[in-house]
Amino acid sequence: MTQPAIAIIDQIRFFLDANDKRGLTALIDNLKSNELIHAIGHLPKQEQASLLTLLAPEDAADVIEEIPDAQAVEIIEDIDAAQAAAILDKMTSDEQADLIQEMHFEDAEAILDQLSDEDANEIRRLVMYDPKTAGGIMVTEILVFDEQLTVGQVIEHLRVAVRSDDDTLLRYIYITDSKGIISGVIQMWDLVPATPDTRLINIAQRAVLTVNVDTQLDELINFFDTYDFYAVPVIDHDGRICGAVLRKDLLEAETENMVYEHLETQGIVGGDEIRTMPVLLRSRRRLSWLSVNILLNIVAASVIAYHQDVLESVIALAVFLPIISDMSGCSGNQAVAVSMRELSLGVVKPTEAMRVWIQEVSVGIINGLILGLLIALAAFFWKGNIFLGIVAGGALMLNTILAVSIGGTVPLLLKRFGVDPALASGPILTTITDMCGFFLALTFASMLLPQLGGL
Amino acid sequence: MTQPAIAIIDQIRFFLDANDKRGLTALIDNLKSNELIHAIGHLPKQEQASLLTLLAPEDAADVIEEIPDAQAVEIIEDIDAAQAAAILDKMTSDEQADLIQEMHFEDAEAILDQLSDEDANEIRRLVMYDPKTAGGIMVTEILVFDEQLTVGQVIEHLRVAVRSDDDTLLRYIYITDSKGIISGVIQMWDLVPATPDTRLINIAQRAVLTVNVDTQLDELINFFDTYDFYAVPVIDHDGRICGAVLRKDLLEAETENMVYEHLETQGIVGGDEIRTMPVLLRSRRRLSWLSVNILLNIVAASVIAYHQDVLESVIALAVFLPIISDMSGCSGNQAVAVSMRELSLGVVKPTEAMRVWIQEVSVGIINGLILGLLIALAAFFWKGNIFLGIVAGGALMLNTILAVSIGGTVPLLLKRFGVDPALASGPILTTITDMCGFFLALTFASMLLPQLGGL
Repeated sequence: MTQPAIAIIDQIRFFLDANDKRGLTALIDNLKSNELIHAIGHLPKQEQASLLTLLAPEDAADVIEEIPDAQAVEIIEDIDAAQAAAILDKMTSDEQADLIQEMHFEDAEAILDQLSDEDANEIRRLVMYDPKTAGGIMVTEILVFDEQLTVGQVIEHLRVAVRSDDDTLLRYIYITDSKGIISGVIQMWDLVPATPDTRLINIAQRAVLTVNVDTQLDELINFFDTYDFYAVPVIDHDGRICGAVLRKDLLEAETENMVYEHLETQGIVGGDEIRTMPVLLRSRRRLSWLSVNILLNIVAASVIAYHQDVLESVIALAVFLPIISDMSGCSGNQAVAVSMRELSLGVVKPTEAMRVWIQEVSVGIINGLILGLLIALAAFFWKGNIFLGIVAGGALMLNTILAVSIGGTVPLLLKRFGVDPALASGPILTTITDMCGFFLALTFASMLLPQLGGL
Repeated sequence: MTQPAIAIIDQIRFFLDANDKRGLTALIDNLKSNELIHAIGHLPKQEQASLLTLLAPEDAADVIEEIPDAQAVEIIEDIDAAQAAAILDKMTSDEQADLIQEMHFEDAEAILDQLSDEDANEIRRLVMYDPKTAGGIMVTEILVFDEQLTVGQVIEHLRVAVRSDDDTLLRYIYITDSKGIISGVIQMWDLVPATPDTRLINIAQRAVLTVNVDTQLDELINFFDTYDFYAVPVIDHDGRICGAVLRKDLLEAETENMVYEHLETQGIVGGDEIRTMPVLLRSRRRLSWLSVNILLNIVAASVIAYHQDVLESVIALAVFLPIISDMSGCSGNQAVAVSMRELSLGVVKPTEAMRVWIQEVSVGIINGLILGLLIALAAFFWKGNIFLGIVAGGALMLNTILAVSIGGTVPLLLKRFGVDPALASGPILTTITDMCGFFLALTFASMLLPQLGGL
């Protein structure tokens, strides 16, 4: 049995109240990552800050690295800039940059002010890189040596300097020529059989594939798909090696992108939401999407208002309008999800909307027929009028075909024109399908009005 | 400029028609992973099979490893079992198992029949492991040596046997005692400074953390969150080391889970869909969710049917019912998305529904007030009747609060009772919010009927 979370929080509070640094450190050290994340999320803001300031900076840095960025930024912004800087100082440069990037400008500047000029400039430089580029996800803790050094010198250096530093990329040694330009790469593995007086240049692989600080995330994904490397060196605008992108970090960045995309399709704008964030911030982020959506909904519903006279004659139809709206949305969103997935896999390209449409329309016809038949049967059994079934079922059938056509192709078209499909596909889909669904149902009803009157 | 996909397909077809194995192999070798995925997806089934059978088995295996599993399985099932077996023979055991697991039983058995008994049994053993356990994602290509061997013997062995095998986990050497039980681990790095006659046991770290073949994915995630290891050895039911779980594979498995979950929330049941799958299969998978949804929709709409008399008196309300239904669904799905995210991060536990509810309700009140006000204004400007605004706005406001309450808590409750929240949260949410939204709007209208009559 793991201990219940409430006990852990009580323990943390006990040590905080007693100002017992040693006890708190020992407790935190023994918590698993998920226990820590969970406990910190349950502390009030003030106690989160006390916890970080009571711990030694290196232990506080460990805590910050464990918890999600969004939560970490909130806590760091709350504590004294000097103490925040001391904690950041114990983190690797790319982690520092990730946090600084998400902070409010004035909080970030206050912390950078407290760091050494060198560190602050390194962070400022890293923050400049777009998080969706190589510069934004590279690690800068890499091994770079002059090509004329010997294997013995390097092993000696590694023994002295690197032993306890887990954060350095130990798998590769990059070598540079006299001008500081990368001239080769050696796998750590290759040092084992080499004699100590061998020069690095003589065991290095000379043809080194590199990427640029501006290389985009999807190009990097292609790169690692093509080459079975653990990491690739990154070259800055001056042609010098400034870091390396690790395959695993790329996977993490890709995962994070997918999380953002998933949250965006559900209308959480601006990325991650953690419920410990301020209520007004959460409310605003969600509203920015809802308020657009309600306007689109009003536009769609105006189709009903316009045909109000038909509805007045066939009031039973009012039961079917929300069903048609919801079901078309569901069918369309399935097609959106498959298109988003195929786009991210590279199975389909943004220019191939026609191909996708042909593949969707066949599924749309089958599902439209079946769903239309179901709703027609429901209508018939309810009112005993076959024509009500024809109106409702026919509208749902045609609208299902329309919905999968739009749902399948809109993400491709949006992507092609540079609009984020995760955010925009849903509202566009539901607005169009609602309008058409209402229009179809009400138009069919107006055509069959003599057969439907008084329902 | 990259070459357009159509040109690549034409090239593939040219080589297929000419039966030109060498040309085809050279072409495929030079394609990037995404170009290959894309081109194969565009070939008709028959040509996909010709392509794999024309290539040498090891090249065909490379192709299979590049493309998504769902697509790979389709193609392999289409080709001759003997040729499929020859291709599988060139893949690592965990990749073989992944494919065999997704095949139809008779296709899988036909292929296993063609493999050596040893290989077939290895695959059968791996397939037995749940893909969400350590056994399901481990690699079996690891280095295991007797603890009494010397560093020199091992380096000699590695030089001879492992040089060109990229798939073996080279970072760790696991050592076993005379009974075959794991007794230590050595990082490859530790071989560098050791003298050749040192026995492995003398440089090994003796306390080895292991996991069991049955260890669950989320426990593994916790493990790698807690320990900064590259891989962890896996122990089978007999206590022997049988593989290792790599941190990177865990990330991939987690990413795959998230993809499945995302597709499920949109109603793509049974995991991945690629549009090259048979139409009837795609149709059936989507319908299994849609058909449940349409029944729930009919149940929800029955609330309108029940209050048809009210609607008849205030026909204008029919315009607002789909808006209330859609907007409540949107607000609720935002809360579902945040809860799913917080569950996967471990920020919240399934038992904490009350805590989540309190955090959601505050956002619900703010957003409900604003959305309700917007819809009330729209109603007032349309009909000039303040009471219509009160009915529509009031219903939307209360229903938004209800929707975020349900959306936030239902995923936790489902998870607690062992139901997949990705699949079930949406339909449960929209059914309840539709029923309540319609009920609220129609009840408010019936109470204010004198003020609304004839709208």
